[in-house]
Amino acid sequence: MSAATPPVPRPQEPVEPQELFRLGTDADEPCLRADAARNRARLLEAAARLVAERGADGITMEEVAAAARVGKGTVFRRFGDRTGLLTALLDHSEKKFQAAFLSGPAPLGPGAPPVDRLRAFGLAMLRRTADELELQLAAEADAGRRYTVAPRRVLRHHVTLLLREAVPDADCELLAYTLMAQLDPALVHHLVRQCGMPPERLEAAWTDLVDRVTGSAAAR
Amino acid sequence: MSAATPPVPRPQEPVEPQELFRLGTDADEPCLRADAARNRARLLEAAARLVAERGADGITMEEVAAAARVGKGTVFRRFGDRTGLLTALLDHSEKKFQAAFLSGPAPLGPGAPPVDRLRAFGLAMLRRTADELELQLAAEADAGRRYTVAPRRVLRHHVTLLLREAVPDADCELLAYTLMAQLDPALVHHLVRQCGMPPERLEAAWTDLVDRVTGSAAAR
Repeated sequence: MSAATPPVPRPQEPVEPQELFRLGTDADEPCLRADAARNRARLLEAAARLVAERGADGITMEEVAAAARVGKGTVFRRFGDRTGLLTALLDHSEKKFQAAFLSGPAPLGPGAPPVDRLRAFGLAMLRRTADELELQLAAEADAGRRYTVAPRRVLRHHVTLLLREAVPDADCELLAYTLMAQLDPALVHHLVRQCGMPPERLEAAWTDLVDRVTGSAAAR
Repeated sequence: MSAATPPVPRPQEPVEPQELFRLGTDADEPCLRADAARNRARLLEAAARLVAERGADGITMEEVAAAARVGKGTVFRRFGDRTGLLTALLDHSEKKFQAAFLSGPAPLGPGAPPVDRLRAFGLAMLRRTADELELQLAAEADAGRRYTVAPRRVLRHHVTLLLREAVPDADCELLAYTLMAQLDPALVHHLVRQCGMPPERLEAAWTDLVDRVTGSAAAR
């Protein structure tokens, strides 16, 4: 059936290099003094801990300041408001994750075969989502922006490039949407929190999906 | 790698039989007189046409009444308000589609091999979504309910059952989420409207995905 389908043109939806660059570096924070940078890191760490404990809706700027042992004024000066703090938190986490898959150790980073990197990517994403579920859900509250926000595009672009290495004959751009859907925070939330599925089952399903999609023998 | 993954229990998330029954029949409309039933059908047809032309936000009860050549009072009496009308419209479309895959002609209906039925199901869904995109987007505005609304669960259950026939060794419940994600109205909207992809490309990608996931030879 698919053999009879006529080939269709594949318009590209490129990721702008500056998007990758902006997320991957601290270019927006070039002039932080050492103590300011330390304060910022402590605040983000404290905020991440509190969000993981109580959800993004359950924290105040004052609590974050207290948990980080930093003056209240510093939090407001640094992040403006709660939304600014949560945005910085997610951005910080994206940067760390992006560094890991772009230049960290294999198999998540470069140096391993593409199918191994795909498997590692999904498992790392699922574990990261488990840790940051509340934060990621808050960032994706607007369903319409699910496919267009910059961090999601960067991740999908990475998956597209790995698929092009693994299955060059496929429509890798669309397959990347399929794979990314399996890692969608709203789906993980539904399966783990609403249906009570063990995270290990999601991890096994990811590995199986990668193997099926790439035609790797391990799954069969 | 996946061979080393320990087997995990697979809790079921069954679809209640009454959910299927409620959607698949006109049990909620048992006492409509013939002329009332005709009016209702004309109103739904007119509303569907207007929604396809202008989107769900762009119609009023008065316009629907005028387009169906039915008194304004009849529309309000029948559907209450715009939300009631749009809900009835989507429910009507779900019933038609459900009848088609439960008892219509093969390969969408029973009688064809499961992989052929999966291919036909996705193509029918994509075409239906193209016709009803505005309506389906309006119904799924709340991202949190994306996986739990009854019609979505019925469709996913159907895909799960076909997958169990085609690949009994797989985690078919989770694979069904993956396949359904490819048919998500918000994704179709993003790809077709925002990225300008031709619908034929989505159809080809669906067929290819079914073949990869079920290990059917046609895709390779």
